[in-house]
Amino acid sequence: MSWIRFALAQLNPIVGDIAGNSRAILDATSNAYSRGARVIVTPEMSITGYPVDDLASSIDFIRQSESGVASLAARLASDGFGDAVVVVGYLSEASDTEFGGARAHNSLALLHEGRIVATYAKRHLPNYSVFDEERVFVPGAGTLVQNLGGVVTGFLICEDLWRSDGPVAELAARNVDAVVVINASPFELAKDEMRFPLLATRAAEFGASVVYVNAVGGQDDLVFDGDSAVLDSSGSTLLRATRFESALELIDIRGNGESADGFTLAEPEDTITPFIGADLPDIEAVWNALVLGVRDYVTKNGFPSIALGLSGGIDSAVCAVIAADAIGANRVYGVSMPSKYSSDGSKDDARDLATIVGCHYDVQPIAGLVAPFETQLELTGIAAENIQARARGMILMALSNQHGHLVLTTGNKSEVAVGYSTMYGDTVGGFAPLKDVFKTLVWDLARWRNVRASARGETPPIPLNSITKAPSAELRPDQTDQDSLPPYDVLDAILELLVAQRQSVNAVVSAGFDRETVERIANLVAGSEWKRRQAAIGPRISQMAFGRERRLPITVRHTSGLV
Amino acid sequence: MSWIRFALAQLNPIVGDIAGNSRAILDATSNAYSRGARVIVTPEMSITGYPVDDLASSIDFIRQSESGVASLAARLASDGFGDAVVVVGYLSEASDTEFGGARAHNSLALLHEGRIVATYAKRHLPNYSVFDEERVFVPGAGTLVQNLGGVVTGFLICEDLWRSDGPVAELAARNVDAVVVINASPFELAKDEMRFPLLATRAAEFGASVVYVNAVGGQDDLVFDGDSAVLDSSGSTLLRATRFESALELIDIRGNGESADGFTLAEPEDTITPFIGADLPDIEAVWNALVLGVRDYVTKNGFPSIALGLSGGIDSAVCAVIAADAIGANRVYGVSMPSKYSSDGSKDDARDLATIVGCHYDVQPIAGLVAPFETQLELTGIAAENIQARARGMILMALSNQHGHLVLTTGNKSEVAVGYSTMYGDTVGGFAPLKDVFKTLVWDLARWRNVRASARGETPPIPLNSITKAPSAELRPDQTDQDSLPPYDVLDAILELLVAQRQSVNAVVSAGFDRETVERIANLVAGSEWKRRQAAIGPRISQMAFGRERRLPITVRHTSGLV
Repeated sequence: MSWIRFALAQLNPIVGDIAGNSRAILDATSNAYSRGARVIVTPEMSITGYPVDDLASSIDFIRQSESGVASLAARLASDGFGDAVVVVGYLSEASDTEFGGARAHNSLALLHEGRIVATYAKRHLPNYSVFDEERVFVPGAGTLVQNLGGVVTGFLICEDLWRSDGPVAELAARNVDAVVVINASPFELAKDEMRFPLLATRAAEFGASVVYVNAVGGQDDLVFDGDSAVLDSSGSTLLRATRFESALELIDIRGNGESADGFTLAEPEDTITPFIGADLPDIEAVWNALVLGVRDYVTKNGFPSIALGLSGGIDSAVCAVIAADAIGANRVYGVSMPSKYSSDGSKDDARDLATIVGCHYDVQPIAGLVAPFETQLELTGIAAENIQARARGMILMALSNQHGHLVLTTGNKSEVAVGYSTMYGDTVGGFAPLKDVFKTLVWDLARWRNVRASARGETPPIPLNSITKAPSAELRPDQTDQDSLPPYDVLDAILELLVAQRQSVNAVVSAGFDRETVERIANLVAGSEWKRRQAAIGPRISQMAFGRERRLPITVRHTSGLV
Repeated sequence: MSWIRFALAQLNPIVGDIAGNSRAILDATSNAYSRGARVIVTPEMSITGYPVDDLASSIDFIRQSESGVASLAARLASDGFGDAVVVVGYLSEASDTEFGGARAHNSLALLHEGRIVATYAKRHLPNYSVFDEERVFVPGAGTLVQNLGGVVTGFLICEDLWRSDGPVAELAARNVDAVVVINASPFELAKDEMRFPLLATRAAEFGASVVYVNAVGGQDDLVFDGDSAVLDSSGSTLLRATRFESALELIDIRGNGESADGFTLAEPEDTITPFIGADLPDIEAVWNALVLGVRDYVTKNGFPSIALGLSGGIDSAVCAVIAADAIGANRVYGVSMPSKYSSDGSKDDARDLATIVGCHYDVQPIAGLVAPFETQLELTGIAAENIQARARGMILMALSNQHGHLVLTTGNKSEVAVGYSTMYGDTVGGFAPLKDVFKTLVWDLARWRNVRASARGETPPIPLNSITKAPSAELRPDQTDQDSLPPYDVLDAILELLVAQRQSVNAVVSAGFDRETVERIANLVAGSEWKRRQAAIGPRISQMAFGRERRLPITVRHTSGLV
């Protein structure tokens, strides 16, 4: 019997940045090693970042991944950590290729004494929801069990753990002390409520501790929440890392194997108490996911700053606060772009928000910009309304071109669903923080963020009026969103069934909604697919986000058969 | 021994339009039946259209597909065609579901005497290139062989034919007279040069005629080219339908089976000579694909008309002619939007083009529209240049809002690849005819179209000057594309290697290109992914189109490993 100290390195890789990701692994190893850890576990694809999408089809990228791992192994040894075992995730060349494309494995490697001493390739490849792994990866075969200084340890990669057949069943039939699972498992609302029961179930099946290491960070539309953890075979949580942050957590795991049969690893000389992070309320988890999604999009893509329009409405107010929480208010540029239809209240609310948040604030009236269009083109109705939204988009993009800002587009999921937006107007921008946040949840977030500010002795950032007033695009006199749409609580409930749960119109009507309303909403959703195809990406927080998760044709005509 | 007349119904379904697609099958059956056909074969997913994407995850849609087939079977019988066999493609419910999602088969059904008498589910599901079939379909099992009035016939669906294992091998081991393959196989350059050799190979392996029926028509970014054909076991082409058009072609096939063992079908009373369409030169096939793609996007989505900017350049000229060929010049609205940098030559070329094509023509100068932006925002450099392109986008969208036009965006694949465009400016539009056409191919198309016009005694539509002058965005004095980009023949050759063939920078340099240029182009391609994510769809003509075929992250940093 022996004790070995494991480190869970909850890292935040950047896709393609093999040098930077390798350095982060080296740094984490150095830190963990100095604290007695001799097994350092990093997330799925920690060398390459995840998801790599079709980069996995580039033989050049596969080779870079493999040589990156070899370089890292050598460097770990030369830096004095060769007697530890470092577990990395990477892309490796498959010996056979799939018909039509895939030629790489989603692999893990154990690095020890300067070399790759063992590998395992992911066997269950998710190909649903946001995942396209059967497109880009070849499945592996077999199981990997290694004796790590007496701790007999099995290895899995992400989806492997979620299915009971294959590697899970095979490891359950072995006598292991621990199962290490490396993951790049994206956040979605209430995901921890699925994840922890699964970890407990698997730990019981294995009769072993489960060491679950997840990536953290924003990568385009996905946010990885971390939540790395260790559960023992009774289902008790022994360690839980803070979510939405990079982390390095240690735990000592007892081995029942003969240490002489495996890698010789030094036992720890002291004892530690593993960290057990508190659970987060759902609303706070969503806020943190949005902030992390924005921060990492800005940081990883090298933007100096963020610009966004401030209308005085709730969406732009929440986006401004997310932006300030993400990168600091001094890097956020709010622009009020009032028209002749903008109420004084809206203008005041926009200014108040900017003042409280402490971001830059500029006022650019649009009257003088839209009038020449209206006159020259003789515009009326929707065409005239849309010109206003488009002039605002032009202002924001011009500021972006002048100063390098990332422009945020502030539309919420309810609007995105029904196409309640002006293309090339309020849709302008590179990132859409609220794209996956229904309007009713936007209000909840605003209230929660204000309460949190109060609890911390800060001024609530979002003007009460922005929360309580009737939503309006203010493109014509006395317009409100409810001129065109049902109340948002009704709309969001219908959208939850129609979009998120893929229910039919009939099923939604059976759930108690007005048929005419449901049919109208369904037609709006189908008819605005072309807008969504040209929409900015934004952080996914639900189990059915627009974008890569929901793939539907633009050209579609819903009819029943001949009768 | 008996002869049975087969009909190849090269149909153009609309996704989701079960009633309309069923009516098209009924009409084709009626026509073919009256001409003696007793086996009528329609394309893959002829009931639902293809691709249905995540509609396949809707149990409601699956049921509509199944009941649509049942209704059609009944209607065929009540209309007097019950004694024929009609082969349809449809979505059917799978008895088991895939982990994570898919619960439908991509199936075919034989309809006879008012009922479904046999079914087969596609076994090989393509999940590469533009296909996501492992995401949405459950693979089938087994083979289907039916005696159709003495013609012993095996059945396959599309991808099944391309792989030698599974159903192809199993049918080759049977004694069949014919193999019917139903397809929704999208066009790409030189696809017929792969398709016909494959058909000949398979016909020899089966020792039987292959009856290949493909869909035709544009469906969002895919164009199905038809090219339905019959080859005998010696590899001879006995029938070939006209490409890029709906068609109904007949052929008599000899059966060696005992007709009493199968369906009793009437033999034809006359003889026919099957149609063998001529091959198309590649350039003509591309032109036809673009025209069909535009026509079907307009028609299936119910647009009354098309609007596009006419700059006097080659891209907009070619798009205007494609639009006119697609829906008639009287439904095409060209808008010249000159700035102070627009040369007189460009303005003349735009007007000349519109005159020859015969489309509507309007001039909307932008000077008075951009000046207020420049003044109010104090714009210089790129920001000022982009305002001009964005003012043009606003004009076109305003006209679209007023009149219902579909706006075409005229950027070509070379520009799309390197991001040589103004977001929300020249990228504005719902459909991009040249999105998959490199600039050098745009010139080839222009020359070819002019030559064809001359050959037909028509005026060549594209002004010679638009073809020969140096390309320019005309956003500043004396600007040409080559201020920022290498010559297009060099650029396109590099892009072909980097993008289409996914080669590394090193490999492209080894092929003889300047390293600095290749690296710059590679960085432009990676850095403009965010623009492509917000780009309009356009017809795919290559084997590596931007959009659903090439899935890469926006956030990406290409580095090698530690050294």
